[in-house]
Amino acid sequence: MSFTYNRIVRFQDTDAAGVVYFANVLGICHEAYEESLRASGINLKAFFTHPSVGFPIIHANVDFFRPMFCGDNLAISLIPQKLGVDKFELSYEIAVADVVVAKAITRHVCIDASSRNKQELPGEIIQWLETNRRDAEGAERRKSREIL
Amino acid sequence: MSFTYNRIVRFQDTDAAGVVYFANVLGICHEAYEESLRASGINLKAFFTHPSVGFPIIHANVDFFRPMFCGDNLAISLIPQKLGVDKFELSYEIAVADVVVAKAITRHVCIDASSRNKQELPGEIIQWLETNRRDAEGAERRKSREIL
Amino acid sequence: MSFTYNRIVRFQDTDAAGVVYFANVLGICHEAYEESLRASGINLKAFFTHPSVGFPIIHANVDFFRPMFCGDNLAISLIPQKLGVDKFELSYEIAVADVVVAKAITRHVCIDASSRNKQELPGEIIQWLETNRRDAEGAERRKSREIL
Amino acid sequence: MSFTYNRIVRFQDTDAAGVVYFANVLGICHEAYEESLRASGINLKAFFTHPSVGFPIIHANVDFFRPMFCGDNLAISLIPQKLGVDKFELSYEIAVADVVVAKAITRHVCIDASSRNKQELPGEIIQWLETNRRDAEGAERRKSREIL
Repeated sequence: MSFTYNRIVRFQDTDAAGVVYFANVLGICHEAYEESLRASGINLKAFFTHPSVGFPIIHANVDFFRPMFCGDNLAISLIPQKLGVDKFELSYEIAVADVVVAKAITRHVCIDASSRNKQELPGEIIQWLETNRRDAEGAERRKSREIL
Repeated sequence: MSFTYNRIVRFQDTDAAGVVYFANVLGICHEAYEESLRASGINLKAFFTHPSVGFPIIHANVDFFRPMFCGDNLAISLIPQKLGVDKFELSYEIAVADVVVAKAITRHVCIDASSRNKQELPGEIIQWLETNRRDAEGAERRKSREIL
Repeated sequence: MSFTYNRIVRFQDTDAAGVVYFANVLGICHEAYEESLRASGINLKAFFTHPSVGFPIIHANVDFFRPMFCGDNLAISLIPQKLGVDKFELSYEIAVADVVVAKAITRHVCIDASSRNKQELPGEIIQWLETNRRDAEGAERRKSREIL
Repeated sequence: MSFTYNRIVRFQDTDAAGVVYFANVLGICHEAYEESLRASGINLKAFFTHPSVGFPIIHANVDFFRPMFCGDNLAISLIPQKLGVDKFELSYEIAVADVVVAKAITRHVCIDASSRNKQELPGEIIQWLETNRRDAEGAERRKSREIL
């Protein structure tokens, strides 16, 4: 099963049109990424606060199918994929009551935080990528079998 | 017992000094308020989205005792108090591992959202105020007894 | 010349990695869109606050080439394009000291805000699209001539 | 004259009630502080990004008199005051079309960023405090004379 993060839409996520402000949806996806790292035992303070190795986002995209409202209970599922020795990509699907309301992708590169040169993904991230990838594939296989 | 909301500090809550950006602490307090309303059965979408009766904040203050870091597990306890027929106040205490790191207050007035004139607090809010006040007083009494 | 919006990076735009948080870059692009609307005489309060006709974003993407730091002076240029009777797209280029640091796109659809059904773009938006498109084309032509 | 920062209210500053989200007002005040530092020649990147000396906020408060809407042109005036060898306070007044809509205060302490021990305010901040204080007093005196 792919990792799923549950998140209530907060008042501050919304804008004067009465729905979630578009860029905040990417922030909520990033929370799912953080929660998945935390679930695998990674220390978020060390990982994100002035780290020596960083994973900045080089690309993000998001498609919106339905508006999200204050109080909505979002289920954000996350599937990571290794893209090379120094890159990975995360695919997010956001659902409200089993209806997909948005999909997003973030692409990350691994860098030495002081030189900002690319470097190979460290062991803990490779392990996190593999665990979550395998979980997601298992879920896909189960879904296919159910369809058959 | 007073209502308590648990919240992990997210990367987007932080700033380039490596800690939670000061104004975001008030946003996190507001999340505790929203969660307390939700726990008492209030529909957040109707309550916060272009409502006919609103509860805008007329005053807020916050004291910071220690910095908060990405990944910190915050416990925000909330005690509401009715201040008159058309006003209430919320006191927040934020703790990390039982150490209080910040305290805040927000003061709200009840208005007709279109005219923006003050009006009396509606029944559902009075009930929410009383329930949470009583819970909090019970917790205070228990605490005093433990000290004795 | 394409419309350009200048914006200093603020402390709250940054995160604990010391650079602008990725999703905030899309928020800054949206500011450029707002400023361009304002420059053409559109009333932002009426346009964005519980409007009867809305222009929600259905797709956004962003590529990051270099990190942005607190205090950086961003120049965000904006080129809009009509995509049909009910859609338009905005292309953004963000530069710091003439170096492009990020590029983004937002795609908007015109809807009746209460039914959320698609509807044709109103006159003031068509005029804004045409003015800014023409300005941008002029700039492109001038650039080509300079190269020759 | 006290330092004044002009700022258009952006769509992302607002919430589903159609007005500026309360905590964002403190963020806008902090922008005025940053702009005032920048105007006096302080490098914001060095000042705010993993600095060796920091000025965290230990207290903030804000009073709201009128709602602020998307597109509103805010004039935020700023008066700093030294509170001791290691503390200062900033008073903010936000006006829209000469009507004061909010007032706020932030109190800052000077610390060594790695040990987080208090330390004396450095020269550049003392100078900034004095320049802005004197400017503000001049404005007050002029205002009093005009009244006479």
